[in-house]
Amino acid sequence: MAKKYVYNFREGNAQMRKLLGGKGANLAEMTKIGLPVPMGFTITTEACLNYYEEGEKISEDILSQIFQALEELEKEMGKKLGDPKDPLLVSVRSGAAISMPGMMDTILNLGLNDESVKGLAEKTGNERFAYDSYRRFIQMFGNVVMEVPHEKFEEIISEVKKKKNATYDTELDAEDWKEVIEGYKKLIREETGRDFPQDPKEQLLMAVEAVFKSWNNQRAKVYRRINKIPDDLGTAVNVQAMVFGNKGNDSGTGVAFTRNPSTGEKEVYGEFLMNAQGEDVVAGIRTPQDIKQLKEVMPEVYEQFINVCNLLEKHYRDMQDIEFTIENGKLYMLQTRSGKRTAQAAVKVAVDMVKEGLITKEEAILRVPAGQVETLLHRRIDPNAKVQPIAKGLPASPGAACGRVVFDPDEAEALGNNGEKIILVRTETTPDDIHGIVAAQGVLTSRGGMTSHAAVVARGMGKPCVSGCESIRIDYEKQEFKVGQITVKKGDIISIDGSTGEVMLGQVPLIDPELSEEFNQILAWADEIRKLKVRANADTPSDAQKALEFGAEGIGLCRTEHMFMAQDRLPVVQQMIMAETKEEREEALSKILPMQQKDFEGIFQAMEGLPVTVRLLDPPLHEFLPNEEELIVEIMELKAKGPSKELEEKQEILKKVRALSEMNPMLGLRGCRLGLLYPEIYTMQVRAILTAACNLAKKGVKVLPEIEIPLVGHEAELRILREAVEKTAEDVFEEEGIKVHYLIGTMIELPRACLTADKIANYADFFSFGTNDLTQTTFGFSRDDAEGKILPHYIENKILSDSPFIVLDRDGVGLLMKMAVEKGRSVKPDLLIGICGEHGGEPSSVEFCHMIGLDFVSCSPFRVPIARLAAAQAQLTNPREDNN
Amino acid sequence: MAKKYVYNFREGNAQMRKLLGGKGANLAEMTKIGLPVPMGFTITTEACLNYYEEGEKISEDILSQIFQALEELEKEMGKKLGDPKDPLLVSVRSGAAISMPGMMDTILNLGLNDESVKGLAEKTGNERFAYDSYRRFIQMFGNVVMEVPHEKFEEIISEVKKKKNATYDTELDAEDWKEVIEGYKKLIREETGRDFPQDPKEQLLMAVEAVFKSWNNQRAKVYRRINKIPDDLGTAVNVQAMVFGNKGNDSGTGVAFTRNPSTGEKEVYGEFLMNAQGEDVVAGIRTPQDIKQLKEVMPEVYEQFINVCNLLEKHYRDMQDIEFTIENGKLYMLQTRSGKRTAQAAVKVAVDMVKEGLITKEEAILRVPAGQVETLLHRRIDPNAKVQPIAKGLPASPGAACGRVVFDPDEAEALGNNGEKIILVRTETTPDDIHGIVAAQGVLTSRGGMTSHAAVVARGMGKPCVSGCESIRIDYEKQEFKVGQITVKKGDIISIDGSTGEVMLGQVPLIDPELSEEFNQILAWADEIRKLKVRANADTPSDAQKALEFGAEGIGLCRTEHMFMAQDRLPVVQQMIMAETKEEREEALSKILPMQQKDFEGIFQAMEGLPVTVRLLDPPLHEFLPNEEELIVEIMELKAKGPSKELEEKQEILKKVRALSEMNPMLGLRGCRLGLLYPEIYTMQVRAILTAACNLAKKGVKVLPEIEIPLVGHEAELRILREAVEKTAEDVFEEEGIKVHYLIGTMIELPRACLTADKIANYADFFSFGTNDLTQTTFGFSRDDAEGKILPHYIENKILSDSPFIVLDRDGVGLLMKMAVEKGRSVKPDLLIGICGEHGGEPSSVEFCHMIGLDFVSCSPFRVPIARLAAAQAQLTNPREDNN
Repeated sequence: MAKKYVYNFREGNAQMRKLLGGKGANLAEMTKIGLPVPMGFTITTEACLNYYEEGEKISEDILSQIFQALEELEKEMGKKLGDPKDPLLVSVRSGAAISMPGMMDTILNLGLNDESVKGLAEKTGNERFAYDSYRRFIQMFGNVVMEVPHEKFEEIISEVKKKKNATYDTELDAEDWKEVIEGYKKLIREETGRDFPQDPKEQLLMAVEAVFKSWNNQRAKVYRRINKIPDDLGTAVNVQAMVFGNKGNDSGTGVAFTRNPSTGEKEVYGEFLMNAQGEDVVAGIRTPQDIKQLKEVMPEVYEQFINVCNLLEKHYRDMQDIEFTIENGKLYMLQTRSGKRTAQAAVKVAVDMVKEGLITKEEAILRVPAGQVETLLHRRIDPNAKVQPIAKGLPASPGAACGRVVFDPDEAEALGNNGEKIILVRTETTPDDIHGIVAAQGVLTSRGGMTSHAAVVARGMGKPCVSGCESIRIDYEKQEFKVGQITVKKGDIISIDGSTGEVMLGQVPLIDPELSEEFNQILAWADEIRKLKVRANADTPSDAQKALEFGAEGIGLCRTEHMFMAQDRLPVVQQMIMAETKEEREEALSKILPMQQKDFEGIFQAMEGLPVTVRLLDPPLHEFLPNEEELIVEIMELKAKGPSKELEEKQEILKKVRALSEMNPMLGLRGCRLGLLYPEIYTMQVRAILTAACNLAKKGVKVLPEIEIPLVGHEAELRILREAVEKTAEDVFEEEGIKVHYLIGTMIELPRACLTADKIANYADFFSFGTNDLTQTTFGFSRDDAEGKILPHYIENKILSDSPFIVLDRDGVGLLMKMAVEKGRSVKPDLLIGICGEHGGEPSSVEFCHMIGLDFVSCSPFRVPIARLAAAQAQLTNPREDNN
Repeated sequence: MAKKYVYNFREGNAQMRKLLGGKGANLAEMTKIGLPVPMGFTITTEACLNYYEEGEKISEDILSQIFQALEELEKEMGKKLGDPKDPLLVSVRSGAAISMPGMMDTILNLGLNDESVKGLAEKTGNERFAYDSYRRFIQMFGNVVMEVPHEKFEEIISEVKKKKNATYDTELDAEDWKEVIEGYKKLIREETGRDFPQDPKEQLLMAVEAVFKSWNNQRAKVYRRINKIPDDLGTAVNVQAMVFGNKGNDSGTGVAFTRNPSTGEKEVYGEFLMNAQGEDVVAGIRTPQDIKQLKEVMPEVYEQFINVCNLLEKHYRDMQDIEFTIENGKLYMLQTRSGKRTAQAAVKVAVDMVKEGLITKEEAILRVPAGQVETLLHRRIDPNAKVQPIAKGLPASPGAACGRVVFDPDEAEALGNNGEKIILVRTETTPDDIHGIVAAQGVLTSRGGMTSHAAVVARGMGKPCVSGCESIRIDYEKQEFKVGQITVKKGDIISIDGSTGEVMLGQVPLIDPELSEEFNQILAWADEIRKLKVRANADTPSDAQKALEFGAEGIGLCRTEHMFMAQDRLPVVQQMIMAETKEEREEALSKILPMQQKDFEGIFQAMEGLPVTVRLLDPPLHEFLPNEEELIVEIMELKAKGPSKELEEKQEILKKVRALSEMNPMLGLRGCRLGLLYPEIYTMQVRAILTAACNLAKKGVKVLPEIEIPLVGHEAELRILREAVEKTAEDVFEEEGIKVHYLIGTMIELPRACLTADKIANYADFFSFGTNDLTQTTFGFSRDDAEGKILPHYIENKILSDSPFIVLDRDGVGLLMKMAVEKGRSVKPDLLIGICGEHGGEPSSVEFCHMIGLDFVSCSPFRVPIARLAAAQAQLTNPREDNN
């Protein structure tokens, strides 16, 4: 038997969305459950694909199936397409399997021509309606199918109006529309070299073909690329008997959601226009009325409509987005689909529906897109505000902030302490600028990537940051920056959106994050289900506190470099780096020790009873020294003034900076290599950690320190450093007269660590994947460098679908992780394994971590709720049986 | 039954070397085949291990076995240890399974005491001999066992000599020795607080224990670390009846090789001393005679000795290193072992022995250490010359060179063209310096690693280079460099050894490389056996020629960056880089095209009929621009002079340099990323390659170009670039009216490429492992940075046994390679796979490549013979069955 390419609405159902498209499947479903749906049929997505396979030609087989379906429709409606007496009119609409709203084309009133328009006028007794309908059809068809620009049609109407001194379309009568129609037909002839087709079947086929073609128009292609929709699905075409909302004051049309898609409130939400067709609502020529006013206008229809809404929600078990038309007091349903909603609404609708008994907790969890809820967790720009970005950089740390532009960190600190809201604007930041960042609402830099100093520090502090905003040109001397023609001076107010990378002039309205009751409810359900524990990356007691509030079950990464960078410590740290001998270095370190010990006491106290993974010093030492280039310039200037002590000092520092400078610092003297070459640094840190732990333990505070060695690539590195940690621990415990249980583990962040994880596991109590570095080395991409030019090019050209620094690369990095888990557990079946790279808070990456059997993910405090939710979703879609 | 810890020489054989040590096993073997070996026994290596297991104590069981063996020996010799009438004397010598010459201790004449010395005097009728022997024993025992410094004994002899006005030991008589002995005994008492032991059994046990202890003395530990000998083997102890070479003029002692260990000539080689004990030969107090003179001195003994040599060579089927003693005209063999030899000798001995029918070709191949033959392939310092290095850098490009110091590349070129031999000395080199390198004999830099510009260029040209020689401080202004107190001025002569990294003052004698007839013979045999093909890395026709001479079967890596760097091309290349638009870039590229086309024609012509892999441009573009720091200084100087066109230009260049500068250039915009972002560069290169190929094909030259895309990490990169190459190829073939067969493949040099090799293989005709980059990313080591501080520390502290940049890391990098081979061949069973990193010429790495089934290795031309030999050895030890 030949393949079935055309389905009557009565033949389909909601499950057939791949074949019939979303719209067609739902029209069929509504027909099936007895809702008032104008009759019609759907030409399948397979017909669309066939059209392209045949070289953009509708095959004979499909043609004949279309005409047969048309014939049935005519029979059922008791009207014929193009009938000069009482013509059947149809709409032709696209409908893909995955909704692409507004991306493809629609034609209404098809079937009218110079003859049938007269029959319509006669039959309805409304000549103006008939000719208005006809001109609307010609206009849509002329534009969509015959590709005559929209404005040219509008010009013709304008001329007629001018002639009649009319302001509104409603002032035009049937004769005027006839004049417009003649103008339209002439226009089409001139623009396309052919006449507007009078044969209704020709009209139909041309319209169907136009819908098929719209699958590959530019808009649709871009939409699919952005939304990651495959290109090979095709669109279905729905042909449906017209009903008219513009048949007078007992007619109308509208769109509505069964709940508020912005807040999730359980109230019908939408708008309608009396005496209008659907496109009038969209076009915004007249202001539509709130759907609730329909109660006054047509109480019975309203009641019927509310009943339909309830029925549809119960039937689909989800909030619906509905289109309807009222023709002479009778309600018709034209479309239903799951409604798009904000994160806030998604959460509320899901929780409410559980309470209403409509869905299960598990379904509720799956209804909230984990990636979307991040918007609920930061101050953000009021979604109702209209904003105009003047520049765009990298979205380096989420959230939005407004404040006065300040270029100098000292000034930022002074103003900030006075309660001023400021945005610190720098070409890039260094450890010297930390106090300025602390005082600022947000940070904007013209250079640097997502892991630049500014970005990392801002994320750590939960402050918004836009980095690498290359279109702004900063002039420190003039204390201003330029972007295009715009000059922004010190003290001017700007707003930045660290979630999008956008920079705006002036104060933009912001709203606070809301962790609503419903959100907490969803998270509580998620916590019952998920297998992955969720920890936070936090470096300070206040971060730790924030992490706890968001539900973190420990700290998975406490970076210690910030403990070296604080303004008051940097001179001592530099003294330590400049030291020529081990003794000098130890002397400087002994000054840092009590400071760090206090830091750890604060964090351990905040996290009482929960594990805290402390990573020993990781970054290259030169990060704590001044910038080489600036030093050279300073030295040249000092040289010009003759010999001086300052010159000598600067030259000495430059020598050290040069000695420490590296071709590829990411792959140089950092991580455990520092600990091996300068053992006294790690010894000091371990001493600070464990002394802090002992002090608290004496006070009865339960402390669970996990000491983490970074950048291990060979088991011997960990073996030696583990011995050293154990030695220091023994010393501390003896001095303190108390023992504290602690773990020693390692970051797994180099390919070689994954490949030899079985050997490394012999010396590790735990593994924690550092997927930022692991991604860099696996791809051979320096994140700082690749995010500027390479990755944007790669994503635009579909070489990669996502930045691997945002979404974990499963094929490469993921495969290494899987190997590491298997090899590690082959030696120690109970090895504790987690992840603390930025991927730990990204839903797809969390899912992967769940699938390969990790014990925990760790992410920035603000992303903890996302991870909790994503972990539960992962368990629901890929159940794991362990008892983690 | 109790374990046997002690073996009479009659009980062992050569196969028991692990248990009896090399010396003991060979003494047993010689005993077995009837050679005159003084009787004795061996205490096994297991006894040594047991000694350490028991906490440095000889167990009762072992003690009793020793005494039992001693009793047997006494019975056989008819003498008793310590017998006051006719005492048995023994030697006690260490002997590990793997020879550690001179690393452990020996004691002779054990068994003498105040009583037995009299018996010895009486029995031999030689009082002087007896007391001389006694004092020798006390001296050795006191030094080795009781740890009294050697010099203190010498002082006592000196005093006695002074008193007697004697110059030589031989002038002392029995009475003098008695005085010396009293002095010795007093010395020992004073130094150790105990008496020299008179009980011979106590002497024996103390000596055995001292030998056991010597296994873990500092010298031995260092030797084992350097020579990669495990620490847990232990040493055996040989106790052997003494024979005396110092019993008069019919006695003597000597050492000899059965062939010349330096040249391999078939002639007995060595030296002897009449009336002396072994230590006298070693101590060098008297000048020994050439072994051939023994023919005159004692013709019969000589004949017997030559017979023994021949017998031992036939028996062991290898050149032997022999120790012997003549006691009263009777020859005794004290040791035999395979003789250490130079690479040259190894080759000659192996080939000669095949001719003599002693060994097979296969054995001959295995007899030549592949790593050692590199010394035969470059000009090198005469091994007989004494040289005194003043500084040591990295051995960046092998071979030695002498010449006048020149700091300026232009001056180097001028002098070089005048036929002067010069060494170019720079802090580091840039593409601007190439003409200077070309003109120089060798290059010395104070900065930069093994892959610095100087190193790579020098290796490519086969010129010696010492890089990163940080102890020299160059002063360009004064045209001199300092190292410690030494100042070297322009024009002074220095020598550099690029194989060791050493720098010497003055002219050091050099010798030319010799590819002897025998070496070619070995290589020819190797070629018959090996499965791996051997190609060369060569960038120019002259390199290609050299590669062919060394037996390369194609070019595995032709880097094209040097085609951009040549002095006359750099301005055009810079123009290309500075281009703001694609059109400007294409214009510049069109000027480079004909030059590169000519380069390729030269190489293809040289390699007629053999495959040539051409890698498209790989390094980051900023490598072709001037150094940023120098530019800043220039600009500041120009600024001081006021505005100028030059200033503007420099500022423009600085802008571009900055725009292109990267945090981690190794992981930035390079390799195929360049080809994707600037497609016109690769298009030009492919055009140049294939036009060259077509031109030669028209002349009937067979050309096999293989176009290689570097740094692929994702299959989409290769898919897109493959399409582009194919498109250009079609264009060229159409223009030229001829088609040439060519391949398209990729470097596999990123972990992700290995992990997804099955996907990548879909678009690749061949893989070639770039193990330099793969090692960098797998370890997270930047070679330039790691080789300075990190790797030396790691190797010294046994974290790594070798630099992974020299010896392929099998556990990490190797595992990735293995995965890539398996995944690649799972998709394309016949996928051509090779390696072109520097590991391709290192024997252990070649072996690994053989084991995982590669088709070819490619290395620098000079290492081709090493790779040929190593590949054959790999096949002999790990046979592969394919028909490659």
